[in-house]
Amino acid sequence: MAPPQFKQLRRAYGFDEVAIVPGEVTINPDQANVSLKIEGLTFSIPIIASAMDAVTDVNLAILMSKLGGLAVLHLEGVQTRYDKPREILAEITRASDTEITPLLQKVYSQPIKENLVGERIQEIKRGGGVCVVSVTPANTKRLAPLATEAGVDILAVQSTVTTAKHTSKSYRGLIFSELCKSLPVPIIVGNCVSYGACLELMRTGIAGVMVGVGPGAACTTREVLGIGVPQITATIDCAAARDDYQRESGRYVPIITDGGFRKGGDLCKALAAGADAVMLGSILAQAKEAPGMGYHWGMSHPHPALPRGTRIKVGITGSLEQILFGPTSVTDGSQNLIGAVRTAMGVCGAFTIAEMHQAEMVVAPAITTEGKSWQLSRSPH
Amino acid sequence: MAPPQFKQLRRAYGFDEVAIVPGEVTINPDQANVSLKIEGLTFSIPIIASAMDAVTDVNLAILMSKLGGLAVLHLEGVQTRYDKPREILAEITRASDTEITPLLQKVYSQPIKENLVGERIQEIKRGGGVCVVSVTPANTKRLAPLATEAGVDILAVQSTVTTAKHTSKSYRGLIFSELCKSLPVPIIVGNCVSYGACLELMRTGIAGVMVGVGPGAACTTREVLGIGVPQITATIDCAAARDDYQRESGRYVPIITDGGFRKGGDLCKALAAGADAVMLGSILAQAKEAPGMGYHWGMSHPHPALPRGTRIKVGITGSLEQILFGPTSVTDGSQNLIGAVRTAMGVCGAFTIAEMHQAEMVVAPAITTEGKSWQLSRSPH
Amino acid sequence: MAPPQFKQLRRAYGFDEVAIVPGEVTINPDQANVSLKIEGLTFSIPIIASAMDAVTDVNLAILMSKLGGLAVLHLEGVQTRYDKPREILAEITRASDTEITPLLQKVYSQPIKENLVGERIQEIKRGGGVCVVSVTPANTKRLAPLATEAGVDILAVQSTVTTAKHTSKSYRGLIFSELCKSLPVPIIVGNCVSYGACLELMRTGIAGVMVGVGPGAACTTREVLGIGVPQITATIDCAAARDDYQRESGRYVPIITDGGFRKGGDLCKALAAGADAVMLGSILAQAKEAPGMGYHWGMSHPHPALPRGTRIKVGITGSLEQILFGPTSVTDGSQNLIGAVRTAMGVCGAFTIAEMHQAEMVVAPAITTEGKSWQLSRSPH
Amino acid sequence: MAPPQFKQLRRAYGFDEVAIVPGEVTINPDQANVSLKIEGLTFSIPIIASAMDAVTDVNLAILMSKLGGLAVLHLEGVQTRYDKPREILAEITRASDTEITPLLQKVYSQPIKENLVGERIQEIKRGGGVCVVSVTPANTKRLAPLATEAGVDILAVQSTVTTAKHTSKSYRGLIFSELCKSLPVPIIVGNCVSYGACLELMRTGIAGVMVGVGPGAACTTREVLGIGVPQITATIDCAAARDDYQRESGRYVPIITDGGFRKGGDLCKALAAGADAVMLGSILAQAKEAPGMGYHWGMSHPHPALPRGTRIKVGITGSLEQILFGPTSVTDGSQNLIGAVRTAMGVCGAFTIAEMHQAEMVVAPAITTEGKSWQLSRSPH
Repeated sequence: MAPPQFKQLRRAYGFDEVAIVPGEVTINPDQANVSLKIEGLTFSIPIIASAMDAVTDVNLAILMSKLGGLAVLHLEGVQTRYDKPREILAEITRASDTEITPLLQKVYSQPIKENLVGERIQEIKRGGGVCVVSVTPANTKRLAPLATEAGVDILAVQSTVTTAKHTSKSYRGLIFSELCKSLPVPIIVGNCVSYGACLELMRTGIAGVMVGVGPGAACTTREVLGIGVPQITATIDCAAARDDYQRESGRYVPIITDGGFRKGGDLCKALAAGADAVMLGSILAQAKEAPGMGYHWGMSHPHPALPRGTRIKVGITGSLEQILFGPTSVTDGSQNLIGAVRTAMGVCGAFTIAEMHQAEMVVAPAITTEGKSWQLSRSPH
Repeated sequence: MAPPQFKQLRRAYGFDEVAIVPGEVTINPDQANVSLKIEGLTFSIPIIASAMDAVTDVNLAILMSKLGGLAVLHLEGVQTRYDKPREILAEITRASDTEITPLLQKVYSQPIKENLVGERIQEIKRGGGVCVVSVTPANTKRLAPLATEAGVDILAVQSTVTTAKHTSKSYRGLIFSELCKSLPVPIIVGNCVSYGACLELMRTGIAGVMVGVGPGAACTTREVLGIGVPQITATIDCAAARDDYQRESGRYVPIITDGGFRKGGDLCKALAAGADAVMLGSILAQAKEAPGMGYHWGMSHPHPALPRGTRIKVGITGSLEQILFGPTSVTDGSQNLIGAVRTAMGVCGAFTIAEMHQAEMVVAPAITTEGKSWQLSRSPH
Repeated sequence: MAPPQFKQLRRAYGFDEVAIVPGEVTINPDQANVSLKIEGLTFSIPIIASAMDAVTDVNLAILMSKLGGLAVLHLEGVQTRYDKPREILAEITRASDTEITPLLQKVYSQPIKENLVGERIQEIKRGGGVCVVSVTPANTKRLAPLATEAGVDILAVQSTVTTAKHTSKSYRGLIFSELCKSLPVPIIVGNCVSYGACLELMRTGIAGVMVGVGPGAACTTREVLGIGVPQITATIDCAAARDDYQRESGRYVPIITDGGFRKGGDLCKALAAGADAVMLGSILAQAKEAPGMGYHWGMSHPHPALPRGTRIKVGITGSLEQILFGPTSVTDGSQNLIGAVRTAMGVCGAFTIAEMHQAEMVVAPAITTEGKSWQLSRSPH
Repeated sequence: MAPPQFKQLRRAYGFDEVAIVPGEVTINPDQANVSLKIEGLTFSIPIIASAMDAVTDVNLAILMSKLGGLAVLHLEGVQTRYDKPREILAEITRASDTEITPLLQKVYSQPIKENLVGERIQEIKRGGGVCVVSVTPANTKRLAPLATEAGVDILAVQSTVTTAKHTSKSYRGLIFSELCKSLPVPIIVGNCVSYGACLELMRTGIAGVMVGVGPGAACTTREVLGIGVPQITATIDCAAARDDYQRESGRYVPIITDGGFRKGGDLCKALAAGADAVMLGSILAQAKEAPGMGYHWGMSHPHPALPRGTRIKVGITGSLEQILFGPTSVTDGSQNLIGAVRTAMGVCGAFTIAEMHQAEMVVAPAITTEGKSWQLSRSPH
């Protein structure tokens, strides 16, 4: 009865649709090793703060380093467009819902000051931080040399969708294999969501891939462009590319699931799905040290002609340390993220994140989890 | 354990259930060619305004032509029943929710004035517009000659469901192959939703097929009749018919997905699913130039015995040009539709709509997109 | 990775999850023959009023006959327990939500008056109606002879679940093959939901099967007992049993989908799924002639130890004739049910209900039908 | 089009997603035998009260025994940390929503008084109850000897996830095979959710397995850790392990589905899915004899660094006897649980719970059950 197939659609899954199955053996959470390696660098926790202006500034980057993770400073955001970004950030938090998009469009139309690129990097280095900065593909040739000159440790090249091959009339596409050879630091690239695109990126010689298109809390790419793959499937597919690339090259390129996380359980699921690390935006924007002062917005939001995103009031719920390591009296999974990861690895019997990749998962929609709608179902009484 | 099969049910998908996967190569949005061809005519954008009284009148049709698209004037609506349709439209917008259905039943019970058919068409032509008008199958033999005589460019024959073969006691069914031979203009026909029905329609020699039964914002066909196929599956199936028909005949007959669009992402998905163009109702009814003055209703709504539909307050959100081309400060995907289509084609590496048909899609229910329910999930704080 | 299978679960579908695909040819709605045959009797419309006290009394039964359908009077409800059932029905409608279950338990604890059985039947016959009455299996041996003596035309034996074989310590199970031979009238039996149970029932010689466990508007069997199969799958499976039984016996036993209908589209879907007729409760309880006076409740509701169900305020929306045949200004599919069935058969090209059984259906969840959540999605504006 | 598989995800189902199909033969409910055997002990009903402080205290344990079931007293809750637990329980019920987690963390940080272990057990025995107590794996070696010395009948070793093999730096993992040999009473262990983990546990010689991770009404394990399997699939998989273990060993080890139950229908579904008994928390917390006084909270809630759970106001709806056996005027399935189980077994033709394991089930999401959203769908009128 079915017609000849014009197109087959595969089912893709997001965080809320899956769950991790406990293992047949368990270990104590304190035995779980949660470290991350990016080329020569080792980080004691697999958490990366997003290259978003509400999440990462110089101070947050230094603090994340001290806590064992890393943070990415966006070289095309307010930090390099303004000498005093704090004033601009405060103005953004004060704007009303109707004013916010035009204001962001105006704020981000100011030119990048090249001198600020080096200054911000040096501030992070002076503070003792590992310095990671991000640029978009179109500005990479201009900004990457400035960054490496200033002493950056890792360069991230990131846009909504980045591929190994890009065609443009107005400029010659970025060739990642050339970039890798010309720069003295590891390059991580994103975002992508599919096996093929991820594999092609890895073959250019880069040091890490960011995975995720459309899932972020402050992102409306899915609504505006119809583009996106839910994070669990995107992670599983890119993990397959990573393993196949390792088989063909001998080189292990970590994948970093980026966007859509709301609670500790989501981190555990991303790792079980094959991620080596996670990149967090809105969760870390809740830290009292975050530059967003309780607000969060996306970096596609200020687009002059086709803005995408929403500004979210995330609130300030605790210190960065408390969000990462607890202890906490919050029971919704938004604090003690590393404690949650360790506990989940414990019940899966995983000593390392590589072992956590072997955990079994099931499709189990949150909407049907028993007992969760208790209050609702009892309301008539 | 399953019993002998009486009937197999195939899963069908709508806009909100799918997403487009970015490609392995990308291009710059300005390199994407989004033009549409219907027989000899070429349109620079693949957007058609619906044959609905809240969407298309003479002025809107002229404006759509100037902007590169086309609009379909319904020859059985208020434009041909009333000398001064604006007064009637204003009355419809002023009616209360309880008055609206009886009012529409009364308004549309007035007879069609044959002299107005020619007048409206000539008004559009005088304004420099490409003129497309629509008639129902039952009235085609009476109205089509009047329309061609007046200089119409394309004739649309459209009802809820139209097939190549219709049986009736009261009149001899319309034979499309005869109609195509007897009329000097291209004929587009709809609506249909299945491979078989679409293929049979194309074999009659028509120039385009409208796809979609039941999905429109102002439509309750699915509730009242149980009839309908969600738009992504309908488009995929009819695209298969188009390609098979091209293989057997050498002739390419475009398919136009009609109804159910709410935002730019939906247009991108329809094109990725195989559509050559999209027909928009409620989105364009929001233009300040639309005759509905911020309201929208369906053409099955006034049925005297079995009315179907609802009147919707869609509001007036901008000019037609802004809705189609931006720039905008709206981030929900309801403006700069062509910008959205170009951007999506860019991340899919599609230079033409035909290449966009090759984009991969996944099933990814909106309800589970991560992060979208942030406000909800944070409310207890 | 999957464990050895202890149990396989098949997916089952309800009305809201499916839609009918239009056919490749269409016919005019007035050419559709919607008649139903039960043994020697022919009814011009395939609609049966439920054996529920809020739906069917003597007057409603006479009226349904005049309009071409039939209605089933419950011989174990208020009509045979009370000389003046109207007073009792009025008391039920006046009770508060907290009083209703204890009140129903008390009302239905009154004994059945055997003299009223014959009286009610004769009232219907005197009014010119086809008389159908229903009894539960446990009371069949006592009440069936009284009913046939009084001139009943069809006997319905009905309980939540009825099978061809029932074991009890307290009474000898009803043997339907013996009952069929001993009674001079056709017997219809229900309810069942599976291929096997339906086939076994048909093999006893009965004249019709009611299909549906748990779906009714006033029913909580699914919540209380966990028992139930959604109506589309139940109908498809029982239609398979009907066709297999016809192949083995040459006898065509109609199946009647009973419960869960909310609008015209649901009737069309049941017929497309294989039903020969539909049994309606809550929709007909809205008729101004219905005994429930705008309320509806189920016949399992008064169970003394394990009550199941809710009393629903359905309101009074029109005359029975208007609900069945229109015309109407209501657009939600709750009126002109026969008009909806004829129109759906028209777009499927079905001249008879048997041809409607061949219509293609798709799984198409209502929740994802595009455009339906318009008001919601536009609310921020 | 699909990439090489890194990981396959199996679909798992919860209570709300499935329904039981009635059988082809039926029996009278009073013929259903619902008894449960755990090694030498037989219980007349298959219901176990959870080892949660809001559910089970000494009095409730005695009462459950009298009614034919059993209750598990947690040896690490308030009953053994406080001489007068009632005062503490009252304080918990009086705390505000913002105070509750810190309060529980404080309450449960008090040390366990070893003398109270024996006292509580002897109180239950003196009251004529079968005495079952629960300990966590880490405390088993210390508390189990005290319990057996005091005369306990069954020992439960229970934590969120318990496996046959656990690795820890700080203590030597519990070896269940050794424990079974060293203790004179049957040991039941949990929780687990997978075939493999359940089979390994049974091979250690234990007498029962508790099934369920994450589903409880007062549990947020799924949110915080991402861990969990919906109860129907967990029960089906563990039932497969039980049957395979019986084939290999000749020994029948009952499985007890623990958590997530909200109404009688859920119990019926668990038994049809393969459970030998059910463990109830929030439903029994509604009994007027329950220690929670209308409130309910989980035993992972007081975790000092990573608390999981919510305190729920469940209300007091009746006596324990009424909840278990009725009669009732409540129609939502929260009372007369045994009546519901018997009735469901009746329509499935199951004389024993082992026969109920053979009942057919279908996937039938509650969200699409017809008629259930009646009030909603009618609201515009």
